[in-house]
Amino acid sequence: MRIFTRVLGAATALIMLSGTAIAQSPFDSPIKARQALMQLYSFNIGQLAGMAKGEVPYDAKVASAAANNLKLAASIDQSAMWPPGSDNSAMADKTSALPDLWSAFPKVVEAQKMLVTATDGIVAMAGKDLASLQGAIGAVGRSCGSCHKSFRAEKK
Amino acid sequence: MRIFTRVLGAATALIMLSGTAIAQSPFDSPIKARQALMQLYSFNIGQLAGMAKGEVPYDAKVASAAANNLKLAASIDQSAMWPPGSDNSAMADKTSALPDLWSAFPKVVEAQKMLVTATDGIVAMAGKDLASLQGAIGAVGRSCGSCHKSFRAEKK
Repeated sequence: MRIFTRVLGAATALIMLSGTAIAQSPFDSPIKARQALMQLYSFNIGQLAGMAKGEVPYDAKVASAAANNLKLAASIDQSAMWPPGSDNSAMADKTSALPDLWSAFPKVVEAQKMLVTATDGIVAMAGKDLASLQGAIGAVGRSCGSCHKSFRAEKK
Repeated sequence: MRIFTRVLGAATALIMLSGTAIAQSPFDSPIKARQALMQLYSFNIGQLAGMAKGEVPYDAKVASAAANNLKLAASIDQSAMWPPGSDNSAMADKTSALPDLWSAFPKVVEAQKMLVTATDGIVAMAGKDLASLQGAIGAVGRSCGSCHKSFRAEKK
């Protein structure tokens, strides 16, 4: 039991940053988590897009790793990250998620399925060669857009 | 080609936030990505620890999802997220990663393997019952600590 308590202490220390946020609002922690997930998408898509656009040299190993990462990230269960009420109507400074996201839920699930399918495609193609990567990245961008266009507030 | 350009445009728009950072320092984007990954760890460990400590009621479905998420996050390839030089010696405001992390690399890889093993354990146990979750979460906390104690600067 002592070890258990100590380890939980360590785990608690690990989440201290988000713990502070939890004390402020029950939505801070899930909002941070989903934004972290988007950041991971962004980082890996950025690597792939950089190569696809010729801004950085094509590297099969880096491209494969980024594609696999995208697939892993897209497979993460987001159920706990979008609690009802965590939209931008009362917290525009913290989130760009429009209230419609919660009322049009099947459409969001479809967009998520599109993303998973697109990541399957890019996992299969990214490590082959540059042309294959360029052919597969479009579906990823479209799946991102399918959610963002409908459910994310425009940046001001 | 028009569709390709448009989709790349969308992908570029997606990474605009990190794009701004890239213009500032080549390290900003990988630092944000690894911090996002840690945030995802933290969110999911937080859900599991909350149940293990009795702060929130045990829920097998939520526990399983969080455990699976941990495993997915731990499986993400971090090669591109830790470029040499992205330590806290010149950027203490942006990262807590100590320079030792890069010179003691095998130890970091071991810590990462510990985490993957620990997530296998928690994936198997978290959805069974509360006692099983409590028995498996310790190894996760220890694997986090094995890296943080050696390679993360103390919070001030």
